[in-house]
Amino acid sequence: MQNTLINDTFLKACLRQATPHTPVWLMRQAGRYLPEYCATRSVAGSFMGLATNVDFATEVTLQPLERYALDAAILFSDILTVPDAMGLGLSFAQGEGPRFAKPVRTEQDVASLRVPDMDKLRYVFDAVSSIRKALKGRVPLIGFSGSPWTLACYMVEGAGSDDYRLVKSLMYSRPDLMHQILSVNADSVATYLNAQIDAGAQAVMIFDSWGGVLAHEAFKSFSLHYTTRVLSQLKTEHNGQTIPRIVFTKGGAVWLDDMADMDCEVLGLDWTADLSAARHRVGGRAGTPGKALQGNLDPNVLFAPPQAIAEQTIAVLESFGKPHTDTTCSGPTHIFNLGHGISQYTPPEHVNVLVDTVHSHSVAMRAGMVKT
Amino acid sequence: MQNTLINDTFLKACLRQATPHTPVWLMRQAGRYLPEYCATRSVAGSFMGLATNVDFATEVTLQPLERYALDAAILFSDILTVPDAMGLGLSFAQGEGPRFAKPVRTEQDVASLRVPDMDKLRYVFDAVSSIRKALKGRVPLIGFSGSPWTLACYMVEGAGSDDYRLVKSLMYSRPDLMHQILSVNADSVATYLNAQIDAGAQAVMIFDSWGGVLAHEAFKSFSLHYTTRVLSQLKTEHNGQTIPRIVFTKGGAVWLDDMADMDCEVLGLDWTADLSAARHRVGGRAGTPGKALQGNLDPNVLFAPPQAIAEQTIAVLESFGKPHTDTTCSGPTHIFNLGHGISQYTPPEHVNVLVDTVHSHSVAMRAGMVKT
Repeated sequence: MQNTLINDTFLKACLRQATPHTPVWLMRQAGRYLPEYCATRSVAGSFMGLATNVDFATEVTLQPLERYALDAAILFSDILTVPDAMGLGLSFAQGEGPRFAKPVRTEQDVASLRVPDMDKLRYVFDAVSSIRKALKGRVPLIGFSGSPWTLACYMVEGAGSDDYRLVKSLMYSRPDLMHQILSVNADSVATYLNAQIDAGAQAVMIFDSWGGVLAHEAFKSFSLHYTTRVLSQLKTEHNGQTIPRIVFTKGGAVWLDDMADMDCEVLGLDWTADLSAARHRVGGRAGTPGKALQGNLDPNVLFAPPQAIAEQTIAVLESFGKPHTDTTCSGPTHIFNLGHGISQYTPPEHVNVLVDTVHSHSVAMRAGMVKT
Repeated sequence: MQNTLINDTFLKACLRQATPHTPVWLMRQAGRYLPEYCATRSVAGSFMGLATNVDFATEVTLQPLERYALDAAILFSDILTVPDAMGLGLSFAQGEGPRFAKPVRTEQDVASLRVPDMDKLRYVFDAVSSIRKALKGRVPLIGFSGSPWTLACYMVEGAGSDDYRLVKSLMYSRPDLMHQILSVNADSVATYLNAQIDAGAQAVMIFDSWGGVLAHEAFKSFSLHYTTRVLSQLKTEHNGQTIPRIVFTKGGAVWLDDMADMDCEVLGLDWTADLSAARHRVGGRAGTPGKALQGNLDPNVLFAPPQAIAEQTIAVLESFGKPHTDTTCSGPTHIFNLGHGISQYTPPEHVNVLVDTVHSHSVAMRAGMVKT
């Protein structure tokens, strides 16, 4: 597999190294807002039909890179593949979110949970290898998984939820069972991400999509603790390359100080976070330890006209401020992203405005040509 | 109208005055989890049938006080009465949330918005007077409204939303129109709350239920700015009594420092906030200015067994710490509440555990009988 990258700005920024521009990619960048994605999906028949077929997964992963000058690719898959491999039976009904045929509700359900046989996730690792080959070193490939807590939410609820009543009832009533689920999930996610790294993932991201629904103490014991357990088991190097680890907690900006101590390279933030304050608190000064920050444009900005998209994109870049430009040491860096996945209703041509603005404006910021 | 209260702990705590116990009430305490509420509602026929009938509204407001030793009553009404009075046509379909027949979408829709004639909200003010009479000074009565931003969300979306796509599209595309809506809303809410105060509301609360979905800069310009505009117009005294003003922003804990400067007496917090940190930042020391804090138990705790409910209730009390007990000056105070409205699925007998634990444990804390 080719190790030399044509565009390594994303990996460099993850490691807080200076780059000529601010790298950008978008959560859910291969998705329903792209007509070419919808076309491939209709051939595949279903979401899981896409995700489990190496050729389809490779094709849709590369689709957004053909349209936009993105600085990273992300594996096309779902955050819930791990509980599916545990035997819970994942499906996606038309127009609805994910659903598990066998949710985890009883003590017996919990007792039977095991780290799944990674052979059941072979389709994911095969997709990673295939995508790496197809990318030909254009940009790096990000692997990912849901966080232990986020997986547990779906495993217990059996589907998405408005109020997380079932999973929180279990957590408050039987914390012992919840800890048991989370322990299995943490070890499963670590094994899964390590296998993605072995297959060729050049960075990995943990999506704690539902961490933000927890009370502050519960967040520490039921989410952060188990994300930390995953991180402690992850490979940090593969074939001589450092593998950066990104943690994104939707709604987690309120716990920035708690997350600052995590053993990961990048913190993803949603749009409620002020990047300027976050940089001050966890970004580190040049030559000192710290984390790269990823985010955080409100995806709804992409429904505005081009001029407004450019203005809001610039506002996010400026809120982080000028990244450090000293190539002799590490320092504060920013990876541009949305604060959550791109909406399926996004006009595809609006994404060009975002990507091009990130590149042009971040070059100008480095050159000191704009107020930062 | 009787001004002397039998139990004035809630009002005292709002004003950061020492009380013998920590007062407690619950958002949505008159609601579907109570069988007696469901019985009255089935007679009334609909939610609005309840809210617009003085006798029914009085009856259901007092129902939770018969069961639980609550320290405040809150007017039975909806946060969306104001846009309904603007002519948007509020209704509640069975099993669904609120819906407006005429959502605000076009420039013309916006141009025709006016502060509504308060005569159209007479049923609310009549309910306030009637409830005050029925309470006979047992506990104070809280009046309320949705915040300008939260009203705007429903007015533009026409209903609840998962992604706030329509209202945010308008906000990012035509900020001028959004500011126009919010200006009318702010003046309407202020007029409405002042009329509730005239009718007998002894404290008022602004529910910014959807402030937390905004990006941090947008929160300041589109939510906080207009809540501030409401606050600046509110009466702070009526019949020689101070009228405390409570602001609750769901998901707002991340912006605590921005909210600290608001001209209100009480900040409501959801369960993501650490009350200890919040007290440190906005609670003020004894003899110095500051705000009382209200909150913040996760409503899902009420699905756990009684022992766990008591433990989690105590954890919230202890996270705030011992309130000040100096009767000669103001100082840090806590009003116990949930971090959001009580769930309709809550077992009613579980609420007793919560209320009784707040009272007994908070008395013990003041006596120095427990670790604080």
